[in-house]
Amino acid sequence: MSGSEQQGTLMLAPLVDRIRAQHPLIHHITNMVVMNDTANITLAIGASPVMAHALEEVEEMVGLANALVLNIGTLTPGQVEAMLRAGKRANERDIPIVLDPVGVGATRLRTESALRLLRELRITSVRGNASEVGTLVGVAAQTRGVDSASLSEDRAVVARRAADTFGCTVAITGVYDVIADKRGSQEGEQQRLARVENGHPLLAAITGSGCMATSLVGAFLAVETDAWFATTAALVAMGVAGEMAALKADGPGTFRSHLLDAVAKLDAERLTHAQKVESL
Amino acid sequence: MSGSEQQGTLMLAPLVDRIRAQHPLIHHITNMVVMNDTANITLAIGASPVMAHALEEVEEMVGLANALVLNIGTLTPGQVEAMLRAGKRANERDIPIVLDPVGVGATRLRTESALRLLRELRITSVRGNASEVGTLVGVAAQTRGVDSASLSEDRAVVARRAADTFGCTVAITGVYDVIADKRGSQEGEQQRLARVENGHPLLAAITGSGCMATSLVGAFLAVETDAWFATTAALVAMGVAGEMAALKADGPGTFRSHLLDAVAKLDAERLTHAQKVESL
Amino acid sequence: MSGSEQQGTLMLAPLVDRIRAQHPLIHHITNMVVMNDTANITLAIGASPVMAHALEEVEEMVGLANALVLNIGTLTPGQVEAMLRAGKRANERDIPIVLDPVGVGATRLRTESALRLLRELRITSVRGNASEVGTLVGVAAQTRGVDSASLSEDRAVVARRAADTFGCTVAITGVYDVIADKRGSQEGEQQRLARVENGHPLLAAITGSGCMATSLVGAFLAVETDAWFATTAALVAMGVAGEMAALKADGPGTFRSHLLDAVAKLDAERLTHAQKVESL
Repeated sequence: MSGSEQQGTLMLAPLVDRIRAQHPLIHHITNMVVMNDTANITLAIGASPVMAHALEEVEEMVGLANALVLNIGTLTPGQVEAMLRAGKRANERDIPIVLDPVGVGATRLRTESALRLLRELRITSVRGNASEVGTLVGVAAQTRGVDSASLSEDRAVVARRAADTFGCTVAITGVYDVIADKRGSQEGEQQRLARVENGHPLLAAITGSGCMATSLVGAFLAVETDAWFATTAALVAMGVAGEMAALKADGPGTFRSHLLDAVAKLDAERLTHAQKVESL
Repeated sequence: MSGSEQQGTLMLAPLVDRIRAQHPLIHHITNMVVMNDTANITLAIGASPVMAHALEEVEEMVGLANALVLNIGTLTPGQVEAMLRAGKRANERDIPIVLDPVGVGATRLRTESALRLLRELRITSVRGNASEVGTLVGVAAQTRGVDSASLSEDRAVVARRAADTFGCTVAITGVYDVIADKRGSQEGEQQRLARVENGHPLLAAITGSGCMATSLVGAFLAVETDAWFATTAALVAMGVAGEMAALKADGPGTFRSHLLDAVAKLDAERLTHAQKVESL
Repeated sequence: MSGSEQQGTLMLAPLVDRIRAQHPLIHHITNMVVMNDTANITLAIGASPVMAHALEEVEEMVGLANALVLNIGTLTPGQVEAMLRAGKRANERDIPIVLDPVGVGATRLRTESALRLLRELRITSVRGNASEVGTLVGVAAQTRGVDSASLSEDRAVVARRAADTFGCTVAITGVYDVIADKRGSQEGEQQRLARVENGHPLLAAITGSGCMATSLVGAFLAVETDAWFATTAALVAMGVAGEMAALKADGPGTFRSHLLDAVAKLDAERLTHAQKVESL
């Protein structure tokens, strides 16, 4: 058991305080649909977003950042080049990278670009839905556009296989989330796996909730070197905020506003009280 | 009278249930201003949006889709090529295409690109404001940026002329909406024309309400082959949702949130009760 | 004392009525993160936004506009070319240009592009945060991404120096705002300086509030040739709207909705009552 676990409870909550104290800069190269939402959720958790994608400036910008978020939701070949340049500089500086493989499985451009990023960069965490992560490791899945669909195998098994294949933390989010550690991150221990039950169906009723979760992963990775732990904490934070927002929402439009309010209100006490996470 | 009309009332409402049951995938190549709103309204009506514009993937993505939305609001010449490629594949697959000619009349790039799309693709429906549609058929109009202005002719006449010219359904939206059928779609019958009186002035107080209406047209076309009927139903849905949202709004910002909530709440009963549509 | 000042009070409020009466068209070449918000705030104040950035159409579009907003928040070299073309046409037509130098100091691309725009175009007003404006005139500042940081000199001094250097009105916004006039705009008078105390901390909790303020500057410049006066009025309007919205908000997400509502409600009476502005 690491210092962050006591009696089976993950002590996730203090990470939020750390983000609010350190105010890390999170460089995003992300998609045009959710840019505004991901910037706002990054601010709401207490970090600082910067969106920059021009080839001419990404390396310099990532030189100022504490984490890099790569999201291929509206990718172009030129954007992939910018992601590679920024990612290589992030690797040199040893700052964390989180990859959101939006729509992998829907088109070859997406699948091949995501695999190339995973091959040429040292990625810290991947966060996707079941069919996206399934596609990355060749598990049969029905992808429909950027939506997830059912997998032919248990998602914990798929997340573990992806974590092994790519040597990084892998989160599959959905009705429940699983977060698989890379093998060997804990000496002499089993490969850790977390299961998060926080969340609300309204999160699936708005665009970009997955992308927003990925931005939170970036913020948590910026203040915590244990990537599995940081990724799990971020997904708990997203899920708890979703539950809080749903209490005030009258549908997806008002939910979206209350979601940002809820993220801004998250603190150690609320998170400790509300978290539904098991470390398996 | 087609099966969808009884005693002069258009039976529009069941189409919403059909969208919610079939969950069609709507591929958008659209503008950067409204991408988030159009994705969210597509989700709210029960369909699934995907935004993809890279030349390298549009044909593959449209191969998975049930309808294609083309919106030239922030067009570039490269984007027009992507629209042509996607549109040709949509035509091959015989899935519907809706075109939103944003800002036609303001610049040559917009006018020529819209006319080229109408010439080289088989478009199912066009939805624009009065000056945009007027420009497409050479009727004097004052366009100011992307805003509409007064037409020198009755908008029903203009919509009918555009429907004849382009051989598709044409909707002009504004204080009231008119939807003209293409000639000959009903054997031995008159060219159908609908007039929709639903709506609210707050719809004109936010950016992208026209673009959002176009996304709804895409969702309705995906589940109904009678394009005139589907387009009319989509504009009724938009107008009724606007009326519902206005009851809760305190201005354009809150209206925008409540609009998505209202679209998510639309059902056959509400629509049947609230629709103000005449089939002329 | 100009006609717009009486007994030390700036008569800013009538400008809002003028915008609502004239409905000026504001052409934006702006960043992808805030495009939707800046379009919506432009509508809320009573002006009409148009976003167009393609090289092939910017000159034609600016030919219809009453003001031009240039914002380098997600710039690319191609976008800088579009800004130069549009700006030269705006200068020929003698319509005002406002520049938002987002992230200047963070990367060379941003700093050099902003300085090039200031050199090659006749800019009417610049609105930035302390570190952005400081960087433009070589004052030591700590920029972190697109966030501001402390300056080594008083911000009024920095704003004045920038106004002298670039020969235009310069606004630095933050906890309080300062607006420096260019030297010689008032014959035989001192260089005017305004200090605006309106505003609310929630404005810093959402992305794009600076960009939205810049869009308001564009709308006010479109109806008032005294650039210092128009810029000051716009920042008072933004600050007062922020105060109004904060009364109804429960966090940054709901604040964002209420902010647009508040801007739509601004009128001469509210502004006169609430303005906290000193002309120094």
